[in-house]
Amino acid sequence: MARTKVATRDWTRRRTAKRDRLERVRPFVSGRVLDAGRMGAALEALLRPGDRVALEGDNQKQADFLAEALAGCDPQAVHDLHLLISSISLKEHLDVFERGVARRLDFAYAGPQSVRMAQLLADGKVEVGAIHTYVELYARMFVDLIPNVALLCAEQADRDGNLFTGPGTEDTPTIAEAVAFSDGVTVVQVNEIVDEVPRVDIPGDWVDLIVRSPRPFALEPLFTRDPRHIGQVEILMAMMTLRGIYERHGVTTLNHGIGYDTAAIELLLPTYGEELGLRGKICRHWALNPHPTLIPAIESGWVESVHCFGGEPGTERYVAARPDVFFTGRDGSLRSNRVLCQLAGQYAVDLFIGSSLQIDGSANSSTVTEGRLSGFGGAPNMGHDPHGRRHPSAAWLSLLTGQAPALRGRKLVAQITQTFRSGGDPAFVETLDAVPVGKDASMPIPPIMIYGDDVSHVVTEEGVAYLYKASSLAERREAVAAVAGATAIGQEIDERRVGELRRDGLVALPEDLKVDVRRAKRSLLAARSVEDLVAWSGGLYDPPARFRTW
Amino acid sequence: MARTKVATRDWTRRRTAKRDRLERVRPFVSGRVLDAGRMGAALEALLRPGDRVALEGDNQKQADFLAEALAGCDPQAVHDLHLLISSISLKEHLDVFERGVARRLDFAYAGPQSVRMAQLLADGKVEVGAIHTYVELYARMFVDLIPNVALLCAEQADRDGNLFTGPGTEDTPTIAEAVAFSDGVTVVQVNEIVDEVPRVDIPGDWVDLIVRSPRPFALEPLFTRDPRHIGQVEILMAMMTLRGIYERHGVTTLNHGIGYDTAAIELLLPTYGEELGLRGKICRHWALNPHPTLIPAIESGWVESVHCFGGEPGTERYVAARPDVFFTGRDGSLRSNRVLCQLAGQYAVDLFIGSSLQIDGSANSSTVTEGRLSGFGGAPNMGHDPHGRRHPSAAWLSLLTGQAPALRGRKLVAQITQTFRSGGDPAFVETLDAVPVGKDASMPIPPIMIYGDDVSHVVTEEGVAYLYKASSLAERREAVAAVAGATAIGQEIDERRVGELRRDGLVALPEDLKVDVRRAKRSLLAARSVEDLVAWSGGLYDPPARFRTW
Repeated sequence: MARTKVATRDWTRRRTAKRDRLERVRPFVSGRVLDAGRMGAALEALLRPGDRVALEGDNQKQADFLAEALAGCDPQAVHDLHLLISSISLKEHLDVFERGVARRLDFAYAGPQSVRMAQLLADGKVEVGAIHTYVELYARMFVDLIPNVALLCAEQADRDGNLFTGPGTEDTPTIAEAVAFSDGVTVVQVNEIVDEVPRVDIPGDWVDLIVRSPRPFALEPLFTRDPRHIGQVEILMAMMTLRGIYERHGVTTLNHGIGYDTAAIELLLPTYGEELGLRGKICRHWALNPHPTLIPAIESGWVESVHCFGGEPGTERYVAARPDVFFTGRDGSLRSNRVLCQLAGQYAVDLFIGSSLQIDGSANSSTVTEGRLSGFGGAPNMGHDPHGRRHPSAAWLSLLTGQAPALRGRKLVAQITQTFRSGGDPAFVETLDAVPVGKDASMPIPPIMIYGDDVSHVVTEEGVAYLYKASSLAERREAVAAVAGATAIGQEIDERRVGELRRDGLVALPEDLKVDVRRAKRSLLAARSVEDLVAWSGGLYDPPARFRTW
Repeated sequence: MARTKVATRDWTRRRTAKRDRLERVRPFVSGRVLDAGRMGAALEALLRPGDRVALEGDNQKQADFLAEALAGCDPQAVHDLHLLISSISLKEHLDVFERGVARRLDFAYAGPQSVRMAQLLADGKVEVGAIHTYVELYARMFVDLIPNVALLCAEQADRDGNLFTGPGTEDTPTIAEAVAFSDGVTVVQVNEIVDEVPRVDIPGDWVDLIVRSPRPFALEPLFTRDPRHIGQVEILMAMMTLRGIYERHGVTTLNHGIGYDTAAIELLLPTYGEELGLRGKICRHWALNPHPTLIPAIESGWVESVHCFGGEPGTERYVAARPDVFFTGRDGSLRSNRVLCQLAGQYAVDLFIGSSLQIDGSANSSTVTEGRLSGFGGAPNMGHDPHGRRHPSAAWLSLLTGQAPALRGRKLVAQITQTFRSGGDPAFVETLDAVPVGKDASMPIPPIMIYGDDVSHVVTEEGVAYLYKASSLAERREAVAAVAGATAIGQEIDERRVGELRRDGLVALPEDLKVDVRRAKRSLLAARSVEDLVAWSGGLYDPPARFRTW
């Protein structure tokens, strides 16, 4: 016999609440279109104290008009909001806390606002739930942090709410799905309202309200690196990476982090890589934003496919002209998708390589530095060995790990850095700044970006450390020290022991990799300036103004 | 100076090929609608030898009409296809290989066809690329296995190609995205063509061709377990799991595998769990298909949210009446999404618990058994500790791991099994069948479902082993042996050592958990039959015919 129910319950509270909210904003709406001139009042009508609000601040595009309207709300009417935001990039993102509109925050990254963020935390103006990676924060939107309202952005909408995101689709479909299918309210700022969108990135029936922003949403060119700033040290490290990692392990599928170190690798493919006969053998499939520094490799026939997390300002026409390489829609422009590209990076890609600001002696690394609570972004998701992978590849199997029968391959997770950063700060440190920063912020565990036990290779101007071959933590520390140069960490090891590690294959110096240090010159770069990149693109790449010097 | 290009190249080959394909099928099409009566001829016109074809066979729904048409193609016209299919479930999925239409296969699961699969492999009729998890296979569709054509299924389409998937959205949007944005051709069989779909799950401009199938697509009720088959042993294990894992670690977010073991846990929440005062303290947020055995817990107010990988036949009306708990669309029915639910399971959920067919002494487990190359499904993705997670929770932190400063929590990954399976086969074995099966299939590594080093807890009728506390592989093996009962593995440990492990907290027997073995009776189940589940649902649950005995 079944027991009887404990109590009769209303199972449609969220739906009723949604109906009420939409009723309250009705004075500000015509069809689905909100009056931009009364956006603040509309938000005050829409929101309730304590609401969980997902505000789109991706790492590139920003729902800035909505952020501004939110920051301007009357704290008497709207207060104690719980804000979910992947990237805290705008002043308004923190104004909402200063003004008491919001109280609680779950986020992923706070690059440009990290100093003020730390200050607000110290002042008790913001309660941080946790710092996440991007996809981790979205994951929680389907589990224990389901938002009541989403404030999103897109390029265009039609009057039925169908959205065209343009090349920077990024996270909009994922957040919209979490909210639209949990009886939340989705509000989208768009640059234009049109009769027909060139393609549908998000169906109109996932969208409740649209508003035409008085100016286009903010979009940052985060993935553009000017080749002028790439020097001999980056070139030397890139040469060693190509020979000591990509060629040695046969890396065909990969992801690059942001930075000059990896930009140098991209720019050596058509020159040094070509010389080594590696075209078609390495670097064929990428999970990567449209890096301008990848253009020469694409044009030289190295790259078969690129799937993107987001777009990159200036690359629109170039990407649209290369549909065999990039994922594009019927309208011809890029379709990106952070969650799917992260999935690709986690389960379909053999290698991640990225720069780090600090690495400790055990190869733990972090970009959190003194006084800056910057967060994680996507690096921890790409920079770990996913134990849920089951298909083999030559590169993955070349790092055979585990004890029989649980043998398996391993993702290549490489960290690349000069031993001393600009300004003379050592990149290798006894204790990561992340440790005291985490303590000061009362975090239960230190905000480490990539765990040392997930790092398979460390590359510096000294050489390559093959950490995956280390049989103990002590040996891992020795291998790190062997490439840590004149830093205090590097001084922990002597010549003789380095010799043994080289013999045993845990460390390789340039000569072990047959890398001629004298060839590490800027003349080896396929492009040495942004102009060169434009030339490689056949005039299709349109660099943002700040990168134009001509 | 930029180098000049190596050669002028056509960058729109995929787009041109798509135009050609659509031109060739034009005789079979009116608008976007294919003539169902000439489906075979249409596929022969559409496909080219060697094409990579993603055929929708999810673990529940099947594009069976398209599979049949594909299997019936003339191998003179269509041959050497490379098939990507997550679940090999239908006879036709292997007929295509037997008839020479396809040659190469990448897949995730081959449950019902696993014996024939092994045979075809032995006969050289099929070349297996790799066995993946579901999401791993989709990930590769964005990287190195981009399909040329997708054969999908949905409930309804309108004449613009907008798709309504019904509750079983599963994998369709992900595969459609991979193909639609790489100039591939998407073909969708639908049960109905309507003037207006009740909601848009996939926008029409991602869809090239639709065909009305003469019968509704096949859909398996994989997640329905009849409480009649739950016995005292499952109940005892469920009691120990509740006390020894859920209560002890404060598990609020979780995923359950399929099976009677976990169904028993679901059915004890409103009885035993209630008695222990655990409502509101555990099991609040779920990543889970709509398990009918979860109905009593939902009705008793235990469950705040459930996000689903797919649907479950029979639960449609029930789910639609509980929108505060389930993710539903404007039309009122469930919206599921495997990729997003896997994301949730990986990054937002603290615990996975599932049954296994075999576990070895080191806690490696697999459902691959002699002569069956069944594959992985989704368990490896849920059943591992994701190193890319950064937000803490009480449950996660309670398994503190790593060496300072790289301290972090850990996902709870529990395996639950009786020491002997039905038929008297020991669940604990010296060597997993997966090892010889993998060797026979020339797999480079054994097809292990969950690695022992990812397993945090093992539950049997003997007790709970807390493997995460083991300081060495030897100690992990002892803890496994301590709960392996009368199996050969269990006989490797003596009473005295078990006593020490209990004292040190590595093993808990029922009395250590204050679980009264005498209470492990069917009367403790909230529902003891499918009729009971229907009663709990207030008549909203409609069990499929095979589960109706009244």
